[in-house]
Amino acid sequence: MAGPFISFMTDFGGAATAPAVCRGVMLDVAPAARIVDLTHDVRPFAVRDGGFLLWSAIPYLPVGVHLVVIDPGVGTERRGVALWVARGDMFVGPDNGVLRPAAERLGGIVEARALTNPRLWRNEVSSTFHGRDVFAPVAAHLASGTAFGEAGDVIDAAELVPLPFPTATLADGALETGVLFVDTFGNCRLAGDVDDLAALVGELESGTPFAVRVGLDETTLTWEPTFGRVPPGTPLLYRDADYAGLGLAVNQGSAAERFGLAADAPVRIRPA
Amino acid sequence: MAGPFISFMTDFGGAATAPAVCRGVMLDVAPAARIVDLTHDVRPFAVRDGGFLLWSAIPYLPVGVHLVVIDPGVGTERRGVALWVARGDMFVGPDNGVLRPAAERLGGIVEARALTNPRLWRNEVSSTFHGRDVFAPVAAHLASGTAFGEAGDVIDAAELVPLPFPTATLADGALETGVLFVDTFGNCRLAGDVDDLAALVGELESGTPFAVRVGLDETTLTWEPTFGRVPPGTPLLYRDADYAGLGLAVNQGSAAERFGLAADAPVRIRPA
Amino acid sequence: MAGPFISFMTDFGGAATAPAVCRGVMLDVAPAARIVDLTHDVRPFAVRDGGFLLWSAIPYLPVGVHLVVIDPGVGTERRGVALWVARGDMFVGPDNGVLRPAAERLGGIVEARALTNPRLWRNEVSSTFHGRDVFAPVAAHLASGTAFGEAGDVIDAAELVPLPFPTATLADGALETGVLFVDTFGNCRLAGDVDDLAALVGELESGTPFAVRVGLDETTLTWEPTFGRVPPGTPLLYRDADYAGLGLAVNQGSAAERFGLAADAPVRIRPA
Repeated sequence: MAGPFISFMTDFGGAATAPAVCRGVMLDVAPAARIVDLTHDVRPFAVRDGGFLLWSAIPYLPVGVHLVVIDPGVGTERRGVALWVARGDMFVGPDNGVLRPAAERLGGIVEARALTNPRLWRNEVSSTFHGRDVFAPVAAHLASGTAFGEAGDVIDAAELVPLPFPTATLADGALETGVLFVDTFGNCRLAGDVDDLAALVGELESGTPFAVRVGLDETTLTWEPTFGRVPPGTPLLYRDADYAGLGLAVNQGSAAERFGLAADAPVRIRPA
Repeated sequence: MAGPFISFMTDFGGAATAPAVCRGVMLDVAPAARIVDLTHDVRPFAVRDGGFLLWSAIPYLPVGVHLVVIDPGVGTERRGVALWVARGDMFVGPDNGVLRPAAERLGGIVEARALTNPRLWRNEVSSTFHGRDVFAPVAAHLASGTAFGEAGDVIDAAELVPLPFPTATLADGALETGVLFVDTFGNCRLAGDVDDLAALVGELESGTPFAVRVGLDETTLTWEPTFGRVPPGTPLLYRDADYAGLGLAVNQGSAAERFGLAADAPVRIRPA
Repeated sequence: MAGPFISFMTDFGGAATAPAVCRGVMLDVAPAARIVDLTHDVRPFAVRDGGFLLWSAIPYLPVGVHLVVIDPGVGTERRGVALWVARGDMFVGPDNGVLRPAAERLGGIVEARALTNPRLWRNEVSSTFHGRDVFAPVAAHLASGTAFGEAGDVIDAAELVPLPFPTATLADGALETGVLFVDTFGNCRLAGDVDDLAALVGELESGTPFAVRVGLDETTLTWEPTFGRVPPGTPLLYRDADYAGLGLAVNQGSAAERFGLAADAPVRIRPA
């Protein structure tokens, strides 16, 4: 029988030894765990990016424990938390919002606990590496069958630090949306699905024209099934496959630069 | 008993979450699978490089399923395929040639199938991420014991897209060879083995002189057991350990730049 | 029951296929092994860095076999060795010092063997890739229960190539220390613990002043719990969490550059 599943994401950097150290700590507690690195290359301290990446990947991951260590607040009063969600998964990490979008996506939080039980931690806890000393061992204990209630005191899920994302709404014949995530190429994942665009125009096909407004500037561009349908340097709307939704890009360029976009920026799209 | 073995190579980038998403999909189907990342840093869309890297690594990998997602043709009519080879391995990926050199190296293709059976896919299949939605679940099903015939319709292996590599031949006292792969340092792995060079001169030792012709230019250089035997900036022929064969390099420089070489370029080597 | 634990560190580069090739070789011998990559991004040939990184991580890794392939001497007369240590772990790699600090940290070497038994190697051994052909299969055989004595001839542990690290001593009201490791940001991990500093001044708090002397230059700076307590460009002493000890850094800068430091450089710290 296969061991318990743990996904693991940090901002430690893919070349660092710190992820392996945390793996070592987890395997000491849960020797049969199947640990999958989601990524360790989240931008340092980028809670928002981590929250988005986990949210986008979570539907494809097996039911299990999901450990996130993106923790700019380590050493301060920020809480460590464990969240138990409707699909049956558990999330472990700092209470800075990074876990919440994924937890909501799996049906919502059934029970939340503060990590107040030191019996699940390493014997020695540093002030700066709670990933190794608190979060990793708690995740491994929960994965290997320790009752969720052992993690610590019950807390009110409504009091967890939120990580709000922009949403997409159709109004006045336009899609009011916003930037969920900017990838390393400058492609922008927008709130909403390609279906939302289709709803505005009936049917989407290569070349369907839209006007995209950011701030006071409006740019006309087209929806395209692939980047290669437009010349280099030309913007387009497309279906982002990695993150399963609506995207704004510039072929061989950076949409973030071209449109001056960052996470949470509002974007308005109407047929043109 | 150990779970089934799956090797996994893509051009998604080592920092992306997409490899973990595919791992998640595979572990859902085959919970006990032992998945080894060959690399996820193949140059984007570089089918040729992927084909070479899999060919070079395959003799050292356990018998199992080998999944490759380097798929510039996704969303077009290119087929997905599964190949069953003489050593007992199965290969899964797009029919763009990337799987063939490795399949041939393991004794040749016993049976080829198009991936036409949607019961082995994810329920929802995107137009752009067949790695996650088709290839990964098919690989996991085959790894976990689903009969090879379930993958889809039999196809003629002779009609698979080829990925021809240059070959090495000895003629007129020279080795006619060509570039198999250029690594990130600009070192060129040539077709043929060091034994082919040795056949030209009896015995190879540090300083054995050769003339290397690329196009109309001929350069005199030496065979060396290690780069450090020649000054920086000096070319040499050597035994490439990573890729187990004949190599052309420049100590602390790029042979690809110095000689103007890319994959498939012909190279002629004679004793000097 | 979980399979044997193997940690694996090299300087092959995280994007290379060579680590997967070695994994393949190990899984052929030890199919159930749980292999954890410590890192494959050690600077090429940096035996010193590898020795430090393994030393710093080893207390957090499960008891098992630890394989290191940082091997600038491959193809020369340097020995391959296996070390059995007091905690019960075994180390496998080249006899160039890379294994020794970690072995000492686990209680010291109980028995050392030269890798002279070719029955534990791959059938064909290249002159340049002993990681794949010798070290990986030996590590896997030892992990899967082959008696340690089968690795090869007993050797005198005192004759192993040493890898001395600077040590920290308190004398004349100062801490005489030295650089253990410079990370990619230029942060310097110094010998000794934060307790050693505290011993000089009674109690450490944000702003506690020290004078740091490197060569003839003395710089006044403060001890800080976090980088952010000082302006960008300002040096500080701090507790390095990744490597669990005393660190010297420049906020948003490189302490290695600022102070002209590299591994082994002596540093003197006194209260100011």
